[in-house]
Amino acid sequence: MIEVVAFDGDDTLWHHERIFTDISARFRELLKHHVDGNILDEVLLATERSNLKFFGYGVKGFGLSLIETALDVCDGEITGAEVATMLDWIKEMLGDPVELLPGVEETVEALRTTHRLGIVTKGDLFDQEGKIARSGLGERFDHVAIVSEKDETTYLRVFADWGVSPERVLMVGNSVRSDIEPVLAIGGQAVHVPYDITWQHEVVDAPQSDFPVFDDVRRVLGHVERLGRS
Amino acid sequence: MIEVVAFDGDDTLWHHERIFTDISARFRELLKHHVDGNILDEVLLATERSNLKFFGYGVKGFGLSLIETALDVCDGEITGAEVATMLDWIKEMLGDPVELLPGVEETVEALRTTHRLGIVTKGDLFDQEGKIARSGLGERFDHVAIVSEKDETTYLRVFADWGVSPERVLMVGNSVRSDIEPVLAIGGQAVHVPYDITWQHEVVDAPQSDFPVFDDVRRVLGHVERLGRS
Repeated sequence: MIEVVAFDGDDTLWHHERIFTDISARFRELLKHHVDGNILDEVLLATERSNLKFFGYGVKGFGLSLIETALDVCDGEITGAEVATMLDWIKEMLGDPVELLPGVEETVEALRTTHRLGIVTKGDLFDQEGKIARSGLGERFDHVAIVSEKDETTYLRVFADWGVSPERVLMVGNSVRSDIEPVLAIGGQAVHVPYDITWQHEVVDAPQSDFPVFDDVRRVLGHVERLGRS
Repeated sequence: MIEVVAFDGDDTLWHHERIFTDISARFRELLKHHVDGNILDEVLLATERSNLKFFGYGVKGFGLSLIETALDVCDGEITGAEVATMLDWIKEMLGDPVELLPGVEETVEALRTTHRLGIVTKGDLFDQEGKIARSGLGERFDHVAIVSEKDETTYLRVFADWGVSPERVLMVGNSVRSDIEPVLAIGGQAVHVPYDITWQHEVVDAPQSDFPVFDDVRRVLGHVERLGRS
């Protein structure tokens, strides 16, 4: 029996990765006179990963990594105007309107009549709080956890805070690495609802477990019902 | 009777503002050929404040504001090397060793034998979690709340999460604006332990309430005892 259905935020409840993709394209355009686009993507990813230990996840750290990457590939030959453009992008990302993914609203509305609902999302605290508020979903969720890392320890702590044992949680998310595998590892249930784009850092080549993969979040409703019956 | 003693983190449990002061001095030095130091301080403060709506509090937002300020005052005439220097400062700040303030360790050790203890701190989630871990205090506190803003709504939510009514909380902090006034406003108790330096944004010219001001955090012990007796 499932007691709590927990959702990831970015790219599960609302669009997120597409603005990164958009900004990355503009970044390639901005620096195309200095560097090939594919190389730029690789340097950016490496910089982001190496900076995770300083910045953690989130848009502000991405912005700082973006500027650092530009300095690297241009060997310091960057103009003030180019840096200013990047700062504008960061603010644009932080102010990006929150657009719910198809089927999210009706799925949440239906589930909340029968289950407690939670959000577990990672990234910048202030940014994620703003997105939850702007999504209009905040009031419909019983629990919200904004976390710096989504690993087994984090999920154990979050579910304990919520007063539910992992066996009675179903986690729904787009990232196998962050939403699915750690929840399965602590005895929870999980459903993968892939998004069109996955950040390279989140890609898992060979998932270690079996789990349902749904192309539409609305299919979570039937899944929850089946789990309840078994 | 006090049930929970809650502490602010930065500049209450551990040193924090001094690294900002240090970096601000280096920032003035870096740009002294472009702009007078006092004007630079003013532009930086104005930029930080105007960016709070995008970045919230914390070191990463400070770093982005630092770069924006440099671009502003130099009218875009900034070198890649100068931007790289600022990025290095941000990482230096995020990796700054956590040094407890005098008397904190013994005060916490004494209080935890008689009271539940909590931390309420604002800033970047990842950075604050790291500081709590590096402080060595984490295990000694029953509750930790990392929040994006310290206002009445936040404190009501945090104390509810902790299962304590505001009347039974004593908050200890260095900021009248963030640690004292909102807690008093919801019926809690609060003690002001000033730090040597206060960020201009946190300065309150005319506090609206009376509250004890202690020059040493150890004096909280006697205060808690007196409150218990009354």
